Amino acid sequence: MTDFQIEIVPELTIPPFLVGEVKSKLAYLDEHIRQGEVAPAGDRILLVLDLEPDPALRSSLESKVQRVVTALVKGAFKPKVQVLEDCLDRPVTYGRDPLPELLERGEVSQEANGVFAMGPLLSRLINYFEGRFLGLADSFAARPYRFPTLIPARYMDRVNYFSAFPHSLSFATHLRTDLDVIDEFASHATCGEHGLSTPMESFSQIEMMLSPAVCYHLYFALADKTLPGGQVVATAVGNCFRFESSNLASLERLWNFTMREVIFVGAKDFVMQNRETARQRMKDTFQEIGLAYKVESANDPFFIGEFRKQAAFQSAFQLKYEIRARLPFKDSTLAVGSYNYHQDFFGRRLNISLPDGSPAHTGCVAFGLERIAFAFLAQFGLDPQGWPAAVRQAMNPEES
Amino acid sequence: MTDFQIEIVPELTIPPFLVGEVKSKLAYLDEHIRQGEVAPAGDRILLVLDLEPDPALRSSLESKVQRVVTALVKGAFKPKVQVLEDCLDRPVTYGRDPLPELLERGEVSQEANGVFAMGPLLSRLINYFEGRFLGLADSFAARPYRFPTLIPARYMDRVNYFSAFPHSLSFATHLRTDLDVIDEFASHATCGEHGLSTPMESFSQIEMMLSPAVCYHLYFALADKTLPGGQVVATAVGNCFRFESSNLASLERLWNFTMREVIFVGAKDFVMQNRETARQRMKDTFQEIGLAYKVESANDPFFIGEFRKQAAFQSAFQLKYEIRARLPFKDSTLAVGSYNYHQDFFGRRLNISLPDGSPAHTGCVAFGLERIAFAFLAQFGLDPQGWPAAVRQAMNPEES
Repeated sequence: MTDFQIEIVPELTIPPFLVGEVKSKLAYLDEHIRQGEVAPAGDRILLVLDLEPDPALRSSLESKVQRVVTALVKGAFKPKVQVLEDCLDRPVTYGRDPLPELLERGEVSQEANGVFAMGPLLSRLINYFEGRFLGLADSFAARPYRFPTLIPARYMDRVNYFSAFPHSLSFATHLRTDLDVIDEFASHATCGEHGLSTPMESFSQIEMMLSPAVCYHLYFALADKTLPGGQVVATAVGNCFRFESSNLASLERLWNFTMREVIFVGAKDFVMQNRETARQRMKDTFQEIGLAYKVESANDPFFIGEFRKQAAFQSAFQLKYEIRARLPFKDSTLAVGSYNYHQDFFGRRLNISLPDGSPAHTGCVAFGLERIAFAFLAQFGLDPQGWPAAVRQAMNPEES
Repeated sequence: MTDFQIEIVPELTIPPFLVGEVKSKLAYLDEHIRQGEVAPAGDRILLVLDLEPDPALRSSLESKVQRVVTALVKGAFKPKVQVLEDCLDRPVTYGRDPLPELLERGEVSQEANGVFAMGPLLSRLINYFEGRFLGLADSFAARPYRFPTLIPARYMDRVNYFSAFPHSLSFATHLRTDLDVIDEFASHATCGEHGLSTPMESFSQIEMMLSPAVCYHLYFALADKTLPGGQVVATAVGNCFRFESSNLASLERLWNFTMREVIFVGAKDFVMQNRETARQRMKDTFQEIGLAYKVESANDPFFIGEFRKQAAFQSAFQLKYEIRARLPFKDSTLAVGSYNYHQDFFGRRLNISLPDGSPAHTGCVAFGLERIAFAFLAQFGLDPQGWPAAVRQAMNPEES
């Protein structure tokens, strides 16, 4: 396949703290973009295309790039990053990218971009981390819930998800319930390089989406009611979906991943205090595990229209702290979890009331299971003999 | 909402053993069908519609019904049902439908047709059953795997799923990666009674589906290779999806459910023997649990075009045995699991070779977690004090 490149000079220079943000959005501008890069100086953007652009495409790409850059950069100010924990210099023993070896050993197989099956090594390691997260949940006597992977589109609409994260939404559908449509599909559907040959009008109007997070299900289960006892601590693990287009990469950024959450619903102090207690308890756990990481303030990956306002808001009110594990092989970090506080956003939106009639506050602690396992392997390698003792011993109970 | 009904006399009388099969297919004939019934004598079909049918719709429905009935009935013969275990008369203590009380207590909440969130009671009960199924997996030293919920459409095409089960397929998509499409959605998408207002051409051509079963992922991970050591026993739990249109009902028939599988890949005898050993071991487990159930030969819910041939084939070769738990409140049974043998279908299709070069045989034991928990509650009620001792004690370890 031949690549074609074009370079665009943004009208506003992109400040260093927004270079990553702009780059991640380039993947969503046009279906012909295979890759987008921003020069470190923020003064040039390179797009790799799947065809030679004609003047119309060139001009459309130029205009889309300028729209995105202007929306993100104009009036933006650098968020003050607050670092709560810095254990990045904890000793690690591995320096390579674990993915090639995992693929070679058959411990991981790639089904599609951002979609992987995992074998015994990763499955056992993830079970170990799940055990630790369940230990955290138990320390709060969290009540277990089981949530579906599908979530009604009207739920997501009701919590403003459409405008905040339209780019990463995943939708579910089925064939129209019509014998002619189903027969035609059964007899003639084929799957080529770009997907199914089936015309989109054979599919039913979309009513369901794939959950982007676990905790929404709980808030909807509690909606339009007074919170029994005034507070809830719940825990659940679930399949989550964030479509990241050409940003999907390795095990670091999956379309389809698994998240364990511990969720707090109640008065403001209850939520804030529990979020802090959870962080302190996980600090001890990460020390035992030997993970090199930091915890710092962050924001969600809002889409272009909402980014500047929402990200600044999250940052100013310290609503989100990310656990970022070190990836030695690329001298970088990967978000493997977060401590979140949503104020009374869901309480107001969904009418979750406290006994005194005021809207409930919510917060959650969330861990990405595939990501933490990947970061762990990136720090300690694939041989369990080289793993920190706490992990090695828990996974081999016979070993002394 | 007003209902309109029409009655159709099938050209061929439907024999009793096909009444349920024909009824289940009526839901897929036309989008205006809200419910379909077959008279027990098999000589009349009643369709409930969401509008008053004009002559064109009447004639189209008549012709679709005749197509379905003829395809299923013509030349069909009654399969000989082989019963391997019959413990239906085991004493149970409950006789009501558990769903209304689960909903009333907030232990279950319905998000959409066939999509439910579950609270602590069901979550703990499902964890208990998961523990038992994991015990079965451990007894075979099964290797743990983790599979995604998404599965490439081309995978499903390669194993003939499009023609066998087109009606129940679920598809995943995302917005086209085009700034204009995403902006338009972010600003204007709304969700009405029939789903999203968004036109289908805003969505990307479909490349991914939602897994209908767990074991396919393993077969694809082993595809085009020689099986290391000549045999594999694996286990995984996963989200599975079967769209059942208006057949979706209660917790018995979910669009989105969870399946635990133990999977055998190897020579014919290895697979057949392990399937039988698994059944014997589960027989003891079900006795301890106190479940009233039977195990009998069955077939998969193939679509109309494939049904007669495939179902007869599965039945003749004893490829599928279902575990059917008693539902006392409706004097009926519910499939809560199955023992399956696929001969060398996947081995041939996907080039999974044994060391001697012949195609591998495969089989799996599968349990529907929500279904077995629902059947258990239907037999023993919502109060753990009334549950069989093995379950009650495992869930309350303090209790003597």
